[in-house]
Amino acid sequence: MKPLLITMGDACGIGPEIIAKAWRAERPRDLCVVADVGVMRAQAGLPLAQLQSPDELAQVPPGCLPVWQPAGLAELGELGSLPLGRIDARAGRAAALCIQAAVHAVQSGQARGIVTAPIHKEALHAAGVPHPGHTEMLQALAAVGSVLRPVRMMLANDELRVVLVTIHCSLRQAIEQINVESVLQTLRITDAALRRFGIKAPRIGVAGLNPHAGEGGLFGSEEIDHIEPAIAAARASGLDARGPFAPDTVFMRARQAPGHPGEFDAVVAMTHDHGLIPVKYLGVEQGVNVTLGLPFVRTSPDHGTAFDIAGRGLADPASLLAAIRMARQLSLS
Amino acid sequence: MKPLLITMGDACGIGPEIIAKAWRAERPRDLCVVADVGVMRAQAGLPLAQLQSPDELAQVPPGCLPVWQPAGLAELGELGSLPLGRIDARAGRAAALCIQAAVHAVQSGQARGIVTAPIHKEALHAAGVPHPGHTEMLQALAAVGSVLRPVRMMLANDELRVVLVTIHCSLRQAIEQINVESVLQTLRITDAALRRFGIKAPRIGVAGLNPHAGEGGLFGSEEIDHIEPAIAAARASGLDARGPFAPDTVFMRARQAPGHPGEFDAVVAMTHDHGLIPVKYLGVEQGVNVTLGLPFVRTSPDHGTAFDIAGRGLADPASLLAAIRMARQLSLS
Repeated sequence: MKPLLITMGDACGIGPEIIAKAWRAERPRDLCVVADVGVMRAQAGLPLAQLQSPDELAQVPPGCLPVWQPAGLAELGELGSLPLGRIDARAGRAAALCIQAAVHAVQSGQARGIVTAPIHKEALHAAGVPHPGHTEMLQALAAVGSVLRPVRMMLANDELRVVLVTIHCSLRQAIEQINVESVLQTLRITDAALRRFGIKAPRIGVAGLNPHAGEGGLFGSEEIDHIEPAIAAARASGLDARGPFAPDTVFMRARQAPGHPGEFDAVVAMTHDHGLIPVKYLGVEQGVNVTLGLPFVRTSPDHGTAFDIAGRGLADPASLLAAIRMARQLSLS
Repeated sequence: MKPLLITMGDACGIGPEIIAKAWRAERPRDLCVVADVGVMRAQAGLPLAQLQSPDELAQVPPGCLPVWQPAGLAELGELGSLPLGRIDARAGRAAALCIQAAVHAVQSGQARGIVTAPIHKEALHAAGVPHPGHTEMLQALAAVGSVLRPVRMMLANDELRVVLVTIHCSLRQAIEQINVESVLQTLRITDAALRRFGIKAPRIGVAGLNPHAGEGGLFGSEEIDHIEPAIAAARASGLDARGPFAPDTVFMRARQAPGHPGEFDAVVAMTHDHGLIPVKYLGVEQGVNVTLGLPFVRTSPDHGTAFDIAGRGLADPASLLAAIRMARQLSLS
């Protein structure tokens, strides 16, 4: 079994701490940390085993945290002594190098999936990294020539899976980005991903954009002009996509809880917050972010670097553990 | 103690059924139904006591459902034999007459508050009623001359109270309606309402409009241009309003559940669905709609006429019971 890789994230945030906590909690034999050894030594509180490549994972003695330090990190200096909770270009650079190395390893067949600990957008920016976040960086690294693959963000917890048509832009821009193609592509990516999750006939509920899904055109025309034709096209190609439904009740209808079988295996939401409000409502501890559309498995916890509590031992590894479990499940199927 | 009034709603929907079920469940001595006697006789399955005015409530024998039939209903014919689950102009007209009579009664001091059962927008329209829903009708009935009072919709359940800046319009129009005045007015109405709820120093969390509340202007400027100045003005006048916060986490932060004390007593949301998605996520059974800004108490259940199940005995009175409890609480304080 090839290893799962877990990237360090921003060395000044809670990434190294939650990686060590997650590993200590379950001591998984399939997990290889992609990180700066000095940072992990400073923050992990565990004996380390330094690997030359992910291939050496099987040789790591039990009880040692396996760390693969990619090329280029040593040149950045003593990262283990960086002050925590601060934006630092070296931390941004190191985070980017770990992600790049992990993608190369998984693309070359050395690993079977990637879990990413949180990075900090401003630290990346300070390091001159031209991507605002993981999704864009992974999309660029996985590009074939200059052609970017269409990717979508899925957020999932035990009750609900949500896939977003639009993400990090203003609400005005998000409305402009809704068209037949962007919605249809999301439906196709979602269907393919759910099949990878082992769901044989995925049921996709589609949330409208406007209140009451437009109330027949009275409250906006995006449902009629874009969303309904996209659903019709998806259904014509055999997908079980239904809607558009009123945004305020479709997530409740999809919710899978004891005594409450959900009507859908995932909900496609038009905007960042329509989708994330219900996923996060019961708490972020169990939320997992999955990038759909990449040629490899990638998951991450549903929270950021939490600079305010970095280095204080307070960070909760629950979401990272859920991300590891989901990456394992997806990369086995 | 003056009575609480409960209006019949659309006679072809589930209103009369849930009124009867709610009354049978608790047999409250303070509740007077404003309805067509024929409709209630056909649907209630209870002995009725017909009142000439709400003042007679105290004389109603125990075990009899007290029904006050306002003037004008008799002229509409045998409403008790209207087919259920269909749009009918007479049902729309009757629903409007009940609401008008209830408002006159509460405004003239005969009653202390109004709970409304669901009406059907198209039935109102067929009856020539110039208002699309309760809120607009109540606002018109409560107007002083031609000046409408600013009102806002609050949705509340056991965990969360949400007040909406914009409601029934397209998302594009909602964005246009967000300005310092509309947000500030919402904050003032919310603060006043929470004080009426008995909360001495109301904590109001304000959700942004854009993802991450605009990320410092990167994802839209409405937070900087409108929402932040409105919060500053509210705070300058002594209100404890905070934000704007990322829409995807502010509702989770406000949620009051066992082991999870909420950070806010209410959240002000910019759009219909930002606010209603979290209120409805755990189920609509307990949701109550409260109209804030009227000169009297008005609550309603958080669902519609449910024509699909009208007359089948399946309707759940839980949300109506919650609306009655909230109207009672608000009109006692």
